[in-house]
Amino acid sequence: MASGPEIEQLIQLLARLPGLGPRSARRAVLHLIKKKEALMLPLAAALDRAVETVRVCEICGNVDTHSPCGICTDPRRTSGILIVVEDVADLWALERAGVGAVKYHVLGGVLSPLDGVGPDDLSIDQLLQRASDFSEIVLAMNATVEGQTTAHYITDRLAASGVTITRLAHGVPVGGALDYLDEGTLSQALKARTSM
Amino acid sequence: MASGPEIEQLIQLLARLPGLGPRSARRAVLHLIKKKEALMLPLAAALDRAVETVRVCEICGNVDTHSPCGICTDPRRTSGILIVVEDVADLWALERAGVGAVKYHVLGGVLSPLDGVGPDDLSIDQLLQRASDFSEIVLAMNATVEGQTTAHYITDRLAASGVTITRLAHGVPVGGALDYLDEGTLSQALKARTSM
Repeated sequence: MASGPEIEQLIQLLARLPGLGPRSARRAVLHLIKKKEALMLPLAAALDRAVETVRVCEICGNVDTHSPCGICTDPRRTSGILIVVEDVADLWALERAGVGAVKYHVLGGVLSPLDGVGPDDLSIDQLLQRASDFSEIVLAMNATVEGQTTAHYITDRLAASGVTITRLAHGVPVGGALDYLDEGTLSQALKARTSM
Repeated sequence: MASGPEIEQLIQLLARLPGLGPRSARRAVLHLIKKKEALMLPLAAALDRAVETVRVCEICGNVDTHSPCGICTDPRRTSGILIVVEDVADLWALERAGVGAVKYHVLGGVLSPLDGVGPDDLSIDQLLQRASDFSEIVLAMNATVEGQTTAHYITDRLAASGVTITRLAHGVPVGGALDYLDEGTLSQALKARTSM
């Protein structure tokens, strides 16, 4: 081993992050060591602070430094729309898109019998309890088989509540070239065509 | 912002690591938050330990938790061979290859007039001081123009010391397909052909 166990351990832990392997983790650690003052110290401090402060919101499942989270406690989010997402990453993506004064509900995954994920493993019961506070629930699952199955299951469970249930539109991505799109997307985009 | 400033800051710092961009840094942070006990806590602790303990070896320029480093103080490295590398990453790569009981000298870069890197910015004077302790000095710079220029410069400076100076062989990488190799490598490999 060319370096001490402390460095080796840091490499191994960084290599477990998604998108990093052993080689890029080594490069990252060398970069950190070279920029000790400018990057390594702030990163260590930021990580320590995050360990102490980050928690999961008890209402929606978002991660934030307090619970309930900033979105759930935001008094300006009064549109009455609740967007149900699989994961916190999807919530962040929608927030970056600036979708408006909505609130969210993070399921924590999708139904997947093969992986042993049933309704009790997702926050579906909590969703049913929240549903009556909203006028519309948008099911923003990923357009995968599991995502759509989960959306159908939730639609069934919410049917009795009387709240309006919608899903995201399928269609051509903005900036997308028709030539590169799959047949399913194209046929859905044609079915849902709108007047100019 | 969907999450607190602590999370946002952690994302921005991680995004400055080589190989990670804003999107993969967000994924990494979510992964860390989900695996708080198994990954985030150990990583925070490892980073804190590394900040405290990692230092640059005063003799060879390697990074380790003590100076002189484990390689410089290793009593079994008696081959009398000193390998000169550009960067710590190159030293680690050679150590992984198990090149034997050698010692190293990290230059800290290559000569590059365009970037304003001259001989005084590299640890060339320290190399000259160490040279007499070794019977052979291997110049293991990268096979780039700057790397080879630096190797020639060091050869000139070391000429008076009388120590044997060598360089790494050029040739076909092990497992490499001829079809994908550049002409320069192929012509060097043919020139340096060896008998079966």
